[in-house]
Amino acid sequence: MNATATIQKTVPAKSPAEILWNLARKDMAAVDAIILEKMQSPVGLIPNLAQHLVGAGGKRLRPLLTVSTAALCGYEGVNHHKLAAAVEFIHSATLLHDDVVDESALRRGKKPANLIWGNSASILVGDFLFARAFNLMVETGSMEALGILSNASSVIAEGEVQQLAALRDLQMSEDAYMAVIQAKTAALFAASTEVAPVIAERPTEERDALRDYGLKLGLAFQLVDDALDYGGLESALGKSVGDDFREGKMTLPVIRALQTASEEETAFWRRVIVDHNQEPVDLEIAVSYLRKAGALQSTMDLARQKSREAREALAIFKPSPWRDTLAELADFVVDRIS
Amino acid sequence: MNATATIQKTVPAKSPAEILWNLARKDMAAVDAIILEKMQSPVGLIPNLAQHLVGAGGKRLRPLLTVSTAALCGYEGVNHHKLAAAVEFIHSATLLHDDVVDESALRRGKKPANLIWGNSASILVGDFLFARAFNLMVETGSMEALGILSNASSVIAEGEVQQLAALRDLQMSEDAYMAVIQAKTAALFAASTEVAPVIAERPTEERDALRDYGLKLGLAFQLVDDALDYGGLESALGKSVGDDFREGKMTLPVIRALQTASEEETAFWRRVIVDHNQEPVDLEIAVSYLRKAGALQSTMDLARQKSREAREALAIFKPSPWRDTLAELADFVVDRIS
Repeated sequence: MNATATIQKTVPAKSPAEILWNLARKDMAAVDAIILEKMQSPVGLIPNLAQHLVGAGGKRLRPLLTVSTAALCGYEGVNHHKLAAAVEFIHSATLLHDDVVDESALRRGKKPANLIWGNSASILVGDFLFARAFNLMVETGSMEALGILSNASSVIAEGEVQQLAALRDLQMSEDAYMAVIQAKTAALFAASTEVAPVIAERPTEERDALRDYGLKLGLAFQLVDDALDYGGLESALGKSVGDDFREGKMTLPVIRALQTASEEETAFWRRVIVDHNQEPVDLEIAVSYLRKAGALQSTMDLARQKSREAREALAIFKPSPWRDTLAELADFVVDRIS
Repeated sequence: MNATATIQKTVPAKSPAEILWNLARKDMAAVDAIILEKMQSPVGLIPNLAQHLVGAGGKRLRPLLTVSTAALCGYEGVNHHKLAAAVEFIHSATLLHDDVVDESALRRGKKPANLIWGNSASILVGDFLFARAFNLMVETGSMEALGILSNASSVIAEGEVQQLAALRDLQMSEDAYMAVIQAKTAALFAASTEVAPVIAERPTEERDALRDYGLKLGLAFQLVDDALDYGGLESALGKSVGDDFREGKMTLPVIRALQTASEEETAFWRRVIVDHNQEPVDLEIAVSYLRKAGALQSTMDLARQKSREAREALAIFKPSPWRDTLAELADFVVDRIS
């Protein structure tokens, strides 16, 4: 499962995400308007499919980061709206392609686009949104922002290919796993927060700090996502769990569980992951092995550590509602489930 | 079938393509080196798959156009090499995605990448090459070139989606067909020739002329390709024909044949295209109907007209080996088969 289902537009009062949304309400309305405008096309299938994914229900976490960090940097222009929309388009393009690659059954709680319009449409509309992201970046005139986001885009694709190559590979190391989630998820978070100090022409140390904040936040986010795919620390298995398991995707919980697995348990993992021979009951067995090994707990612990590092990266900024809420967001990304 | 298999690196002596290759030999070696460098990645699957498609055997027609038009414009820098490589990467990315969309059996005479490494790898490596194209453009520092190529990229995707939506649609008009081939094929030809006067800082009229040359050349190229998919004007059916027919793709020969089709012929086209109910013998029947209607001849006539328009667009330039060979290339694109 890729990192998606987290912060909702309507969250219980006073969550940091809601506070950020309220602070950035006008900016996010401007971003939404750009997203809506730029996904239009005389080819009707494009806005129809894009609307399904991008138009409504998205959490817009990455664009929210771009406009919030731009505010933190005192940016007063309008290019952060275009860059935020570009970031959301890049993210949406990867989701459309991921759905085809992963054969996902659900995306943001809805049927994924490829199961409605077909794989071909998802591939090509993904390409369209990706190209439109670059149109938007060109409009800003910021070659530095273009460099950051085009580099992130090739790193994302690299991470996705690396993950694909490691599918069903029981030997995957923690280092390889961390490299994959840094590339496929954290790189875009980092880019979405790094472009803000760049267009605000802030000093290098603020640029480094905000890139670091985004990177660590993205790592925490994906670690939590990977724990959530096995139900996280809650006892009951929710509805949208087990995607990674069914796909034979190697994530940190499984890698950690394998480190202390008995022979019988190793044989189990080999059957379900390598041989891809699964019975419906196997997900429950997998979760029991993960819990026994403390693998979900240790994955969440690492997420919490990355979240702390994200918070610490903001220390160079003076206290402000923007800084403080971005710091709390780092905790929220982890606490949302445990 | 998408526009690909045309000019070969080794052609009979004195073809315009060979003359251009000889004139641009040093430039093309520099482009090749950039292509090879930029398709590298620590994720081994990426260079392996990219090598299969990009590394060898490609005709490099689009990058050849970029470096040749840059020479025509008297450009003396090195950015045309990067832009030429970027153009080839964009083209390669669309080929990788097209193979998944079209379910092609052959690509450049070889098994397509998706039948060797799978659809997922082709989708993701396509994304990687597309992102790397933008990395290269950023390196040139030319925001105008970025604007031209990012715009072409979204237009290509739009054209591909429009073509997908028109699949098996017997009502597709000639205008809709021309819009599709302009978007999916000619837009990248036009961009590959327009970026040259832009980086050479030539006057607007040269930029307009070279964009027009590329556009018309691209239209001629795709029209010939679509005629070739039914064997062109030759009597014997070659090996790689019938892809469009089998996919139910509406191309100009079929659109033209339908205009004068008898009831029986219309019923045939409805069965093979709309109902997608085909017997092996149907391709031969289709070709006989196309010939009877003069549809292959009239498609080739239109290609020749576009080729003439491409040649005429070069008239504002003084005679030179570059100009004259580019003009001859326009004829060659059509004459290669008839």
